Amino acid sequence: MSTHGYDSGRLNLPFVGIATFAKKPYAPDWENLHADVAVLGAPFDGGTQWRPGARFGPRAVREASTLFAFGHAGAYDHEDDATYLGEDVTIVDMGDADIIHTDTEGSHKNIETGVRAALKAGALPVVIGGDHSVNIPCIRAMEGQGPFHIVQIDAHLDFVDERHGVRHGHGNPMRRAAEKPYVTGLTQIGIRNVSSTAKEGYEDARNMGSDILSVRQTRALGPQQTAARVPQGAKLYLTIDIDAFCPSIAPGTGTPSHGGFLYYEVLELLQSLAQNHEIIGIDLVEVAPDYDPTDSTAILAAQLLLNLLGFIFHQKQRR
Amino acid sequence: MSTHGYDSGRLNLPFVGIATFAKKPYAPDWENLHADVAVLGAPFDGGTQWRPGARFGPRAVREASTLFAFGHAGAYDHEDDATYLGEDVTIVDMGDADIIHTDTEGSHKNIETGVRAALKAGALPVVIGGDHSVNIPCIRAMEGQGPFHIVQIDAHLDFVDERHGVRHGHGNPMRRAAEKPYVTGLTQIGIRNVSSTAKEGYEDARNMGSDILSVRQTRALGPQQTAARVPQGAKLYLTIDIDAFCPSIAPGTGTPSHGGFLYYEVLELLQSLAQNHEIIGIDLVEVAPDYDPTDSTAILAAQLLLNLLGFIFHQKQRR
Amino acid sequence: MSTHGYDSGRLNLPFVGIATFAKKPYAPDWENLHADVAVLGAPFDGGTQWRPGARFGPRAVREASTLFAFGHAGAYDHEDDATYLGEDVTIVDMGDADIIHTDTEGSHKNIETGVRAALKAGALPVVIGGDHSVNIPCIRAMEGQGPFHIVQIDAHLDFVDERHGVRHGHGNPMRRAAEKPYVTGLTQIGIRNVSSTAKEGYEDARNMGSDILSVRQTRALGPQQTAARVPQGAKLYLTIDIDAFCPSIAPGTGTPSHGGFLYYEVLELLQSLAQNHEIIGIDLVEVAPDYDPTDSTAILAAQLLLNLLGFIFHQKQRR
Amino acid sequence: MSTHGYDSGRLNLPFVGIATFAKKPYAPDWENLHADVAVLGAPFDGGTQWRPGARFGPRAVREASTLFAFGHAGAYDHEDDATYLGEDVTIVDMGDADIIHTDTEGSHKNIETGVRAALKAGALPVVIGGDHSVNIPCIRAMEGQGPFHIVQIDAHLDFVDERHGVRHGHGNPMRRAAEKPYVTGLTQIGIRNVSSTAKEGYEDARNMGSDILSVRQTRALGPQQTAARVPQGAKLYLTIDIDAFCPSIAPGTGTPSHGGFLYYEVLELLQSLAQNHEIIGIDLVEVAPDYDPTDSTAILAAQLLLNLLGFIFHQKQRR
Amino acid sequence: MSTHGYDSGRLNLPFVGIATFAKKPYAPDWENLHADVAVLGAPFDGGTQWRPGARFGPRAVREASTLFAFGHAGAYDHEDDATYLGEDVTIVDMGDADIIHTDTEGSHKNIETGVRAALKAGALPVVIGGDHSVNIPCIRAMEGQGPFHIVQIDAHLDFVDERHGVRHGHGNPMRRAAEKPYVTGLTQIGIRNVSSTAKEGYEDARNMGSDILSVRQTRALGPQQTAARVPQGAKLYLTIDIDAFCPSIAPGTGTPSHGGFLYYEVLELLQSLAQNHEIIGIDLVEVAPDYDPTDSTAILAAQLLLNLLGFIFHQKQRR
Amino acid sequence: MSTHGYDSGRLNLPFVGIATFAKKPYAPDWENLHADVAVLGAPFDGGTQWRPGARFGPRAVREASTLFAFGHAGAYDHEDDATYLGEDVTIVDMGDADIIHTDTEGSHKNIETGVRAALKAGALPVVIGGDHSVNIPCIRAMEGQGPFHIVQIDAHLDFVDERHGVRHGHGNPMRRAAEKPYVTGLTQIGIRNVSSTAKEGYEDARNMGSDILSVRQTRALGPQQTAARVPQGAKLYLTIDIDAFCPSIAPGTGTPSHGGFLYYEVLELLQSLAQNHEIIGIDLVEVAPDYDPTDSTAILAAQLLLNLLGFIFHQKQRR
Repeated sequence: MSTHGYDSGRLNLPFVGIATFAKKPYAPDWENLHADVAVLGAPFDGGTQWRPGARFGPRAVREASTLFAFGHAGAYDHEDDATYLGEDVTIVDMGDADIIHTDTEGSHKNIETGVRAALKAGALPVVIGGDHSVNIPCIRAMEGQGPFHIVQIDAHLDFVDERHGVRHGHGNPMRRAAEKPYVTGLTQIGIRNVSSTAKEGYEDARNMGSDILSVRQTRALGPQQTAARVPQGAKLYLTIDIDAFCPSIAPGTGTPSHGGFLYYEVLELLQSLAQNHEIIGIDLVEVAPDYDPTDSTAILAAQLLLNLLGFIFHQKQRR
Repeated sequence: MSTHGYDSGRLNLPFVGIATFAKKPYAPDWENLHADVAVLGAPFDGGTQWRPGARFGPRAVREASTLFAFGHAGAYDHEDDATYLGEDVTIVDMGDADIIHTDTEGSHKNIETGVRAALKAGALPVVIGGDHSVNIPCIRAMEGQGPFHIVQIDAHLDFVDERHGVRHGHGNPMRRAAEKPYVTGLTQIGIRNVSSTAKEGYEDARNMGSDILSVRQTRALGPQQTAARVPQGAKLYLTIDIDAFCPSIAPGTGTPSHGGFLYYEVLELLQSLAQNHEIIGIDLVEVAPDYDPTDSTAILAAQLLLNLLGFIFHQKQRR
Repeated sequence: MSTHGYDSGRLNLPFVGIATFAKKPYAPDWENLHADVAVLGAPFDGGTQWRPGARFGPRAVREASTLFAFGHAGAYDHEDDATYLGEDVTIVDMGDADIIHTDTEGSHKNIETGVRAALKAGALPVVIGGDHSVNIPCIRAMEGQGPFHIVQIDAHLDFVDERHGVRHGHGNPMRRAAEKPYVTGLTQIGIRNVSSTAKEGYEDARNMGSDILSVRQTRALGPQQTAARVPQGAKLYLTIDIDAFCPSIAPGTGTPSHGGFLYYEVLELLQSLAQNHEIIGIDLVEVAPDYDPTDSTAILAAQLLLNLLGFIFHQKQRR
Repeated sequence: MSTHGYDSGRLNLPFVGIATFAKKPYAPDWENLHADVAVLGAPFDGGTQWRPGARFGPRAVREASTLFAFGHAGAYDHEDDATYLGEDVTIVDMGDADIIHTDTEGSHKNIETGVRAALKAGALPVVIGGDHSVNIPCIRAMEGQGPFHIVQIDAHLDFVDERHGVRHGHGNPMRRAAEKPYVTGLTQIGIRNVSSTAKEGYEDARNMGSDILSVRQTRALGPQQTAARVPQGAKLYLTIDIDAFCPSIAPGTGTPSHGGFLYYEVLELLQSLAQNHEIIGIDLVEVAPDYDPTDSTAILAAQLLLNLLGFIFHQKQRR
Repeated sequence: MSTHGYDSGRLNLPFVGIATFAKKPYAPDWENLHADVAVLGAPFDGGTQWRPGARFGPRAVREASTLFAFGHAGAYDHEDDATYLGEDVTIVDMGDADIIHTDTEGSHKNIETGVRAALKAGALPVVIGGDHSVNIPCIRAMEGQGPFHIVQIDAHLDFVDERHGVRHGHGNPMRRAAEKPYVTGLTQIGIRNVSSTAKEGYEDARNMGSDILSVRQTRALGPQQTAARVPQGAKLYLTIDIDAFCPSIAPGTGTPSHGGFLYYEVLELLQSLAQNHEIIGIDLVEVAPDYDPTDSTAILAAQLLLNLLGFIFHQKQRR
Repeated sequence: MSTHGYDSGRLNLPFVGIATFAKKPYAPDWENLHADVAVLGAPFDGGTQWRPGARFGPRAVREASTLFAFGHAGAYDHEDDATYLGEDVTIVDMGDADIIHTDTEGSHKNIETGVRAALKAGALPVVIGGDHSVNIPCIRAMEGQGPFHIVQIDAHLDFVDERHGVRHGHGNPMRRAAEKPYVTGLTQIGIRNVSSTAKEGYEDARNMGSDILSVRQTRALGPQQTAARVPQGAKLYLTIDIDAFCPSIAPGTGTPSHGGFLYYEVLELLQSLAQNHEIIGIDLVEVAPDYDPTDSTAILAAQLLLNLLGFIFHQKQRR
């Protein structure tokens, strides 16, 4: 018998209460995490090359996630006839990694510490950026969890090696990841248009084992066939740059790029990946609320993350 | 021979003049309405569960409708090769129902009074919300007009029976409507994602005769086949929650939900319904201009309503 | 020897971390509050007569308060050569009272419950609205704490008795308060311009013992002389409507009124009141972030509250 | 005995109803105006030299004026202990003059027609711009009402004669006015900073009889002494450019200029002028709502106009 | 061997530096232009019929274009495996045509002068509006370059002959163009919904040789077949009104119209046209940044123009 | 005889043309600067502790400065009866220093290079930030220009020595400056409220020779007496943090603080300083346009800088 938060206690409307992720418990004691999922904010945007502001991404996604925090015993989806994220799935909000202005390396280290804490506790780490450079400490923290494959959903290849000495900005993370011995390969989906990665970056990526797909190529394949290009049986780390989406639904990001994905294209791809792979880590980056006057981008990020977590744990229960 | 307002008198550009609906005459004397269509504002948003502001929906839709109020003798559509809403179709703006803050029941009664006045005058009532709870007094006012079927276009099922004593908020209207003896059934289109209606609500709805279709299901059917699921020959009441649409074109609403309809999907469905059924009442709700910095949502609402009215009266003339 | 949060542990920049009030601990267990100050959100805006949105006031003020949550051991003010709110003053954030849409009375009861919990714990209750109607349950909760005097800082008299049956909207709270036997009188400061209170309301207020001062009258008196009009030795409840301030610094409110107070005028008045009276309860209402695109209003509210709390506890330590 | 709209009929909250000026009756039949005051919108902004958008000024001021349209029998001001604009003062909203894009002269003629209609009906014309060039047709329409003096409240002198052939833009109106034989002189108040008028313009203005006062000079004089510089007994036409005010309260204008007036400075000046002179015409221009995200500017314009009308008719009743 | 700006000198991130188009050299000396492409701003919006502000279009598009101005030796597109706009293609920014407020004809003449200067220098003129009326002087300047065909991508037909004397507003340009002896015909793509052009305008257009296609018709044909309807071998002038696009990605425009194009639909059409025709002139109009709070519209315009220029010169190099 | 740009050539309205500072010539060749004033953008915001976005400050101030770039032969100020910045004062815009994301030191070096180039050319350097950390390389570049005194106008003391290793963020510049042997002392004006500088910072500052004045203290002294506290005869470097101003006129900044300066307070102080001292360098920092929806802050910055430059060169001409 299902029990609703509605039935007793608080009605708990979305606009009421402290804005943790999905109104889940705040767990500031990283030594004592007990949860299936540990959400960590990584409010660093020192790696941006155009519009900053992703430092406010974690707060914006948390605020938006309250829309999906009705007091149900899980979220019923009538299309799938499934109830996702029931009480058997425990989620905590770790708060944010400490950020040190003017110090990229120090900030990155603090993010790495947080992810390692989540992993040590056996929780699935879900990191909310911040700019895409926060993926660098995330992948560092995944050392020892591998080998694993990375699926990147993004407008930009982010495969710059080094330029003017910069190796840890938001144009570099996929190159840094590909260099790791425990990363077996990358599937880079949604890549389009001109960006900071030059032609050589694409060649390097392919040489280092990347499968690069544009939006139009992905659309032609469909979500299932796209998912099928990911090596069978591989454990997956997912890195989702919100600018993979069309600016029509995700304008609130540093470097928007027209021609991006619509909602179901990514949702169904993620559902397919969740059904066929073990997901061992997630980051969602580049939500910049100052460019999101309608909250559309933050709502998208929250809705996507909660659905993705639903798919992952629904699959686990089936197994 | 057609005559244009352009040819004589005022040029009447959209930005000029008092913002009544489509710049049609204001008819504050509800005892003496003489028109085919009577537009009523219902600026009540006390039923919202997240972002308020739909109380400014009627003014925003009126303002946006002035864009479509050029001085033509009707609106020529080159795709249909038809002139819609010529001088033979009379429209008046009744102004707004009186709203009493902190008093849901009193406000709803005033809305009901307005709709009854329109119906008594033989006019098609078109109510601009306000939140979706304003549908409750609209359906009450339709007593004696039935039996009729309701087509709801919405992201949310709005089928909560009672929770913490609340029975007349914006999560309850379809349940309230389904309880009416003169409502023969509902077709609920665009329903998706988690919302305030739990699994039991879906079961109740189906048990009470609802046909529930998601955006993806509707898209797979196409507008004609979707329209064909509505009982043949039924008189229709249409209730359109603007959040049925994708946030890309309708961000200005209280509880946006990604994955919604695009413009032609709904337009063509409405056109098909108008061609095959008698439409006896319309409400369009949940436009919240404070979240609509580009006016895109209000323009959508105005454009949709004017096209829908065009379809309805074009069909009447054909008969 | 002072110790800074800076010296060890986290740098804790303002944009980092969960947004509780001043980043103070979240205390959801209202039966076990242990603090000098208990901050409660009251996100109810069903009492508004023009622009809604004060339901998001508590979150906005919390977010803004993080700007003042640097890791100091208290806040040093060089003008007063004083360190305010050192570690000896404990503050907790109770979260929000549960709000029930369409139900004013039920929502007000939940607010009252929260304030009573704070009082029972011996903490100074600080309530962040929500619209000014949330003052009604606050004053109800103060039963047994009196007799006390109310100082209201506001643009509007809020002294409507009843209109169309409405007695608990945001135009009524001061009338409701004046009716309480344990409220000995009111000083109403900043009142100006036309509003929902008609001439009779002013007469009633004066007859019930109010001292009404406009902005210009207050300005002519100066903060000290204004404070001196409050009955000597009276315990005070402070209710601050942010629209008392000039729209230049507080545009984010439902019913702004030009000609309001500037910052130091209110700050110095509050400092004077805190130095000469025991403050037994505080509410700050009508911050509506949807009309505050620069965050100026929320920052004002947070800056004012933290300074006020500093003055109160600085004075207590002196005694 | 006063009667309130509140007592019977509609509560008529500000957000309810069609947005005419102060919710007064719409009077589109300019041949049959019967009112003490006739408000005319002049939505022309083709004369602007920086940011356009004043064409939406009339609608924005009307919308803001609804805040002051509570159902009172007049507006009670406790500072003056006076009830302004009771039922004995009749106000109508004429709607807008017809504007013809690309045609300055044609648009201006239509504005002149409207003002003449108001004057013919014996009503006080109150024109809401539009940019300051709309003052040109207003002054043309005043032919036969003179001789009269003009009081301009503005940041800019607007005294350019001709430049690149332009003689009827928003930098020219005061020069055009000064040329009229029935204009006896100008008092130009609030003038400051660099603008389109060069040094020669100032010299010309003084030679043509202008008294030019900066904000600081006006502030030093005070409102009474400033008012006293206006020729005794002169009939007055008032032209108020909203950019006379400080951008802190009036950011929503085409060419803001820091260092402007605060609210009471202008209010008290207008009150003094109203008490000592017959006011025969008013325009208020340059409200550009696209730069007014908080509505502060439009609210200022509405609040100021309604108070000014109150002062004028209060004085008439005294006589 | 490719050389990057990155390798030496400045990193030149998008947010750094003076905002000329794509950070290309500013060429104010129109007598001495030496470039393949000459970009001219035409900041005139006196021809608009609803929301103004396109006068700030050139600055907004320039600012947005800096996002695509990384220091690459051209822009690599991995889908086409092509590097566009390498160092062999020279682009200059001519700045803006001088605009004279209140003077449509004078402003148009100055635009014409600029386009003629570009043509005289042998450069491809690219004009950034401004409203669509700026197409009128562009087509005038093309005298002597013809005969040529015009491809218009737009929501509106813009084929009004004359109304209230207006012949050079933003509803008239295609009619004015069709009258030119050197314009051989028009293909008008994206036309939909009601607008200022009445039924007669459509008939006139067809009689004067126009091929009119709605969005849905274009979508059904696909980009290649749409392009194939343009007369083979014709030299083309392209006029792109940004409101051809769906408001979801192009809200920042004066008269948005729902149901517009998505990104790739137009991109692929332009690519096909560039591959099969000589493009002799381009204008892109109606970007109004005041309605574009996320910069999405300006980014779309910049991204589209740079891709279009890439296609054109890529094709030239192939020949 | 004065000559106006108006008389011949272009009308050059503010919204027309490339947005360099005051539309002055762009001088990208730093080896060959020939001007009295050299304006340099320093778009670095990696030093911010709350809201970022000052990287877009230079572009915003340039855009706003076009409002003051009418084609006059200088700007006539009727209050001073003076024409400022006539043709005898030459100003160039150097563009921006190159910024390297994630690299504070590298970015600061590039700023230092720019300032040194201006100084070497004998021009007065005027640096537009960027966050206040850009003052650090400015003061470094001033080596060899001293000894000089610094006047800082700011809300915050910015006197943190080191914290978590950070020594070059926006909370550190005045400490860094005070350490320089060629800096003889500081006058720190406008300092108020809590900030990142703790009590020790104030003590350190006073020990190192600072004169610290709050807004209220400055206001009590008046501009002349405040200026008189600066050591007589000292050469001055001025650093102006826009957050010194009241958020009512300067909301567009990273860390606003209520209770700041109004316009004339700072203007008159700067005028007094310019009349009595040689000004050898200027920076104006922390304009963050993403929080400045009305452009009020950027306009303030531009208006202030242009007046300040006018005062400086007017004084030089007198000598």
